[in-house]
Amino acid sequence: KKIVLLPGDGIGVEVIESAKQVLEAISDEFNHTFSFETHAIGGAAIDEYGTPLPDETDQACQKADAVLLGAVGGPKWDQNPSHLRPEKGLLGIRKSLGLFANLRPIQGFENLLHASPLKHEVVKDSDLLIVRELTGGLYFGTPSERRNNGQSVVDTLAYDREEIERIVEKAFQAASIRRKQLTSVDKANVLESSKLWREIVEEKKADYPDVQVEHMLVDAAAMKLITNPAYFDVIVTENMFGDILSDEASVLTGSLGMLPSASLREDGFGLYEPVHGSAPDIAGQGLANPLAMILSTALMLRHSLHLEHEANVVEAAVQEVLDNKYHTGDLNIRGGHKVGTEKMTQLVVDCIK
Amino acid sequence: KKIVLLPGDGIGVEVIESAKQVLEAISDEFNHTFSFETHAIGGAAIDEYGTPLPDETDQACQKADAVLLGAVGGPKWDQNPSHLRPEKGLLGIRKSLGLFANLRPIQGFENLLHASPLKHEVVKDSDLLIVRELTGGLYFGTPSERRNNGQSVVDTLAYDREEIERIVEKAFQAASIRRKQLTSVDKANVLESSKLWREIVEEKKADYPDVQVEHMLVDAAAMKLITNPAYFDVIVTENMFGDILSDEASVLTGSLGMLPSASLREDGFGLYEPVHGSAPDIAGQGLANPLAMILSTALMLRHSLHLEHEANVVEAAVQEVLDNKYHTGDLNIRGGHKVGTEKMTQLVVDCIK
Ligand SMILES: CC(C)[C@H](C(=O)O)[C@@H](O)C(=O)O
Ligand SMILES: CC(C)[C@H](C(=O)O)[C@@H](O)C(=O)O
Repeated sequence: KKIVLLPGDGIGVEVIESAKQVLEAISDEFNHTFSFETHAIGGAAIDEYGTPLPDETDQACQKADAVLLGAVGGPKWDQNPSHLRPEKGLLGIRKSLGLFANLRPIQGFENLLHASPLKHEVVKDSDLLIVRELTGGLYFGTPSERRNNGQSVVDTLAYDREEIERIVEKAFQAASIRRKQLTSVDKANVLESSKLWREIVEEKKADYPDVQVEHMLVDAAAMKLITNPAYFDVIVTENMFGDILSDEASVLTGSLGMLPSASLREDGFGLYEPVHGSAPDIAGQGLANPLAMILSTALMLRHSLHLEHEANVVEAAVQEVLDNKYHTGDLNIRGGHKVGTEKMTQLVVDCIK
Repeated sequence: KKIVLLPGDGIGVEVIESAKQVLEAISDEFNHTFSFETHAIGGAAIDEYGTPLPDETDQACQKADAVLLGAVGGPKWDQNPSHLRPEKGLLGIRKSLGLFANLRPIQGFENLLHASPLKHEVVKDSDLLIVRELTGGLYFGTPSERRNNGQSVVDTLAYDREEIERIVEKAFQAASIRRKQLTSVDKANVLESSKLWREIVEEKKADYPDVQVEHMLVDAAAMKLITNPAYFDVIVTENMFGDILSDEASVLTGSLGMLPSASLREDGFGLYEPVHGSAPDIAGQGLANPLAMILSTALMLRHSLHLEHEANVVEAAVQEVLDNKYHTGDLNIRGGHKVGTEKMTQLVVDCIK
C-alpha cells in the first residue's frame, strides 16, 4: 500500500513522523507492506517550490492509496497574497482529489474531560460525528470577486444535486453503523440551497429506514452543541456550516489535541489529518501531541485500507497510554506523567506490539 | 413618542404586554408621553391577513419612533410554503426598515450563572456585545434559486462597500464606549467578501485610535466563544456568521430568557426584540419570562429615544428583582421565589416606581 506523507508546517513535521512509526509497527505486527513517500505542501512548499501545492505533490497523491497530512500554516506566510497562503494548498488538494466528505468524530477521553470548558455532567456522554461537505458551497462557488471597481463583492454558495446526495448518503451510512440518529443542519428558513438539501435528506430517508432523521437550523445547532452535546450522534451539513460547527464541537471535550479527521472520496480513498493546527509556538521542540495524528492514521487504516482490526488496535493503544496516565504538555491528567512527542509515540508503538 | 408593538406569536403576546406596562411606569415616573399602536406580524398576521408582513404593519412601523417585537413562529405554520412562514415577516420588516445593525449584548447575571453549561471559572467575567450585519449577505443576495431543472441551486453572499462600512462603524462606536476591544470575525482565507470586510476594518481603524482591533476567523471565533468567552468585548461580523455566533453565545450564560436585542438603522430608529423565540409549549399560560423583552425595552429607551437614564432605571429594576431572588420557571435561583409573567412584570414596575 502506497501512503503519501505530507508533513506541511510546524508540528506537522513531527507528528507525521509519529504516524509513520505507528504504521511501521502495524506492518511488522500484521505483515502488511506500506511504502511511504514524502511530499511538500503549505508553507514548506511555498518556500521550496513557490506554490502551496506543487504539481508533483498533487500527482503523487493521485497515485497513492491514502494520504496523511500533518498541518499547514504559520506566521511566516500570514501576510502573503492569497494564492501564496499555506491553506490554499489544503483547499487545492481537497478539491483536486475530490475529497467531498469530511468526517470529524468527537469523543471525550474520560481522564481528559476535566479540561473541558463545559461542566462534567453536560459533556460526559458526548460521542458525535460531524460529516461536513468539503468541496462545494461558498468555498469553491463562482463568482467570488470584487465588482464595480471594488465597491461591491460577491461570493457564491452553489451545490449540484449530486454533490448533496453523495454527502447525505455518506452521513446515512455513518449513522446506520452508529447510534442511528442523523441530524441534518441547514438554514432552510433563509437559503434556497438549504431547502434543496432538506428535500434530498427527505428523499434518502427511505433507503435507511432504521436511521432516525431530523432537521435542525444551524443557529439552533450551534446552541445545542453547547447545552447538550450528548444529544447528537451524526450531524451532516454543508461546507461552511460544517467548518464552524466542527470547530465549535472540537473544543467541547477539552482535548483538541486528540481529534482526528478523515476527508474521503466515494471510492474510499482519503486524506487524514489532525484537527489541530501547526502550532508554530511549540514547533521543532519535540513537545507536540502526536495522538490526533496517530488517531487519524487509525481512520486511514479503517476507511481507506479497510483494515478495521488494525485500526482498532491503534485506537486501543492510544486509550491504553492515556489510561496509564501519560500525556503531552497540551493536556493534563491528574497524577499523570508528562512526556514529549517521541516518548508518546514510543508508548503507543509499545502497546501495539 | 410613537411606539409600535408587534406581539407576533406564542409568548410574544404576553411579553409585549409586560413591555407596555414597564413603559407606562417609565412615562408616569419621568413625565414622558408614549403612544402605543399594536399591529400583526408572523403567524398571527398569516392567520388574519394571509401574509406574515401586512402593508399596514410595515407602514405603521415606518411612521413610528421605535418598534417592539415579541416573537414569531410556531408549529402551526412550520409546513407552510416559504413565503407564508412567520420568519418571513421578521426578515421583511428588517429589510424594509433598513435595520442593518443587530446588537446583542450578552452578560451573565451572577445568581443565574450556575445554570450555564460552562464551568463557572470559564464563564464568570463574560460581558460581550455581538454586532451583526442584518440586511445583507446570504440572507438577501440574489440569485437565490434552483437551476437546471432543480439539479443545482445557488445562493449569493453579496455586500456593497457602504453596507460593510456602516456596520463596521457602528461596531467601532460601540467598542469605543465599552472596553475598547473589537474583534472582527470573517473567513478571509476563503471568502472574497471577507477580504473586503477585513480591508474596511483596517481603513476605519484610523478613526478610532483608542480601540484595539483584531481579526479572527469564524471557526476560531466559534471555538474561543466557548473556551474563553470573557476574552471578547465587541464582535462584529456579517449576517450569517452573526446569526450562528450570536446564538452560540446566547446559551453561554445559562439564561437565554434574559437576553435582549436591538436592530438599528443609521438614524437611531430601531426594532427591539428578545433573543428567545415564541415558546409555543408554554404560550398563553402566564409562565413566560418577560425580562428579555423588558431589557429590550431598555435598549429602545437608550438607542432610539435617547433616554439613557430611563434605560438605566429599567435595567437596575431587573437587576434588583433578580437580587431579590424572583425568577420565572425557565430559570432557577437557589432559595428563590418562582413567579409568573404578570407578577414578574409587577415586580419590575414596583422597582421603577
Ligand atoms: C484552513 C481552512 C481553509 C480550513 C477550512 O476552513 O476548511 C480549516 O479551517 C479546516 O476546517 O480544515
Ligand atoms: C428567524 C430567522 C430568519 C432569524 C435569522 O436567522 O436572522 C433568527 O434566527 C434571528 O437570529 O433573528
